Amino acid sequence: MKHTIVIVGLGLIGGSLALALKGFEDFEVVGVDVSQPTLRYAREHAVADRVCEDAAAVLGQADVVALALHPQGIVDFLSAYRDQFKPGALVWDVCGVKSAVMQAAQVLPASVDFIGCHPMAGTEFSGIEHAFAEMFRDSHFILCRRPDSTPEHVALLERMAAHMGFRDVYQTTPEAHDALIAYTSQVMHIIAVSVCDDPMLFDCKGFEGSSFRGCTRVAALDVGLWTQLFSLNAPALLEVLDRLLANLRSYRDTLACGDQGRLSEKLAFSAARKRQMSLPGPDLLGPL
Amino acid sequence: MKHTIVIVGLGLIGGSLALALKGFEDFEVVGVDVSQPTLRYAREHAVADRVCEDAAAVLGQADVVALALHPQGIVDFLSAYRDQFKPGALVWDVCGVKSAVMQAAQVLPASVDFIGCHPMAGTEFSGIEHAFAEMFRDSHFILCRRPDSTPEHVALLERMAAHMGFRDVYQTTPEAHDALIAYTSQVMHIIAVSVCDDPMLFDCKGFEGSSFRGCTRVAALDVGLWTQLFSLNAPALLEVLDRLLANLRSYRDTLACGDQGRLSEKLAFSAARKRQMSLPGPDLLGPL
Repeated sequence: MKHTIVIVGLGLIGGSLALALKGFEDFEVVGVDVSQPTLRYAREHAVADRVCEDAAAVLGQADVVALALHPQGIVDFLSAYRDQFKPGALVWDVCGVKSAVMQAAQVLPASVDFIGCHPMAGTEFSGIEHAFAEMFRDSHFILCRRPDSTPEHVALLERMAAHMGFRDVYQTTPEAHDALIAYTSQVMHIIAVSVCDDPMLFDCKGFEGSSFRGCTRVAALDVGLWTQLFSLNAPALLEVLDRLLANLRSYRDTLACGDQGRLSEKLAFSAARKRQMSLPGPDLLGPL
Repeated sequence: MKHTIVIVGLGLIGGSLALALKGFEDFEVVGVDVSQPTLRYAREHAVADRVCEDAAAVLGQADVVALALHPQGIVDFLSAYRDQFKPGALVWDVCGVKSAVMQAAQVLPASVDFIGCHPMAGTEFSGIEHAFAEMFRDSHFILCRRPDSTPEHVALLERMAAHMGFRDVYQTTPEAHDALIAYTSQVMHIIAVSVCDDPMLFDCKGFEGSSFRGCTRVAALDVGLWTQLFSLNAPALLEVLDRLLANLRSYRDTLACGDQGRLSEKLAFSAARKRQMSLPGPDLLGPL
């Protein structure tokens, strides 16, 4: 008999997970969503092997459940369906903050193995119509196991990540994840929206290069999702933001006092750090 | 008889200009550089139709001269060679700030038509070995003409820009250029280096997505070049930096006070601005 993976939430990420998991070992991929237009789209485009509206109808048979909802949606789902998971099932989520979700998962019975995950991919769009199988190509898959997570489930997640095209799988703690993600992802989004608040935004068309496009691309974010992500990780994010503000002010003050020697020293320091941390990845080398 | 375009400085930009201008109308492309390794590389890779070390030997025959040096190099070159340009020649530069260069060009005799240019392209690398013909594909070409610039020379620059693959040509004033570029380019570089100054930089490998790569890519900058560019445009850059600091602080304070409604409102405002300003360009839609 085939195994079953249920993906709850067929938005941008859930839809892409379903597409990317096609043909994974002997698993049937079942998509669940409460939106009729989403289910219709999923059926018409064969996003999953099977779709349905009612999670309760399929959870009991699911060997693996992936929760691809907004953070609060994941918390609510765990609480509402806590007793309907199949004993021995692996349940994982895709939320961009992990401490809050791992805490919420404590509601589950001991027979369910919850592993917090963060597939570090996405686009600035939302919805199943923007999902694509290649979304995860060359990205990182982060995994936070609990003390009682089974090695078999960790190994299964690693095989799924490889099948979906992730470059690698990192294991870490929820706390370390949230501190690092505040820096590598959340502050990037705060920078992007802050740059777009500048009154020059609409005058600068024709004067932008790829540094501007690269920095501001993610400003067109999903407001509800990011309000939750920022709020759930506010202490870590504030620490990073305060350090960024101090670093920016230091450049500002150096520039203001007109000390070119000091400016040059600072730039040499920062540029050397960046060169030391080369980041190969799925990015285009475009015009500045 | 063929026309001649002399490109002074065969670095990343000058080398790419030479490669991209190959086959442009009836022009012979002559590359000039003081570095023997650069000249050797240019010869071996046929970067230009002809290369030489001594600008004085070729300036007198040049119908078009493109100055692809660092800002101070352009200023010094204009002053040193002011009397050696061919009467009626078009001279243009590639400097990322325009007011300082346009002012320096006043040293030229009235018979030389200087037009300040900014091909908005580049990479985080330096040197002829990183030059490539496709660098300018789909980028903007900015042009600052003087009151006495001839329409023929403006038209010639537009044809050259089209040949090199630029998406469009914008005309503006040096002052407007420098104010806009402080926002769209210079502050992006200050953000990138400031982010790389964070103590978490070397711990975050494996936790970065394309928003981080997109924002920090340009931090590996040419220190000498950018010290000059920032310093020559310090007043405009400081204005933009102060506005950015205020916008970041506003997000910081909203986050700190825990008002999710206000945070959501702010994000909706910024995201809508970004969506209104869609920026097609040569960028990859990569993982966040």
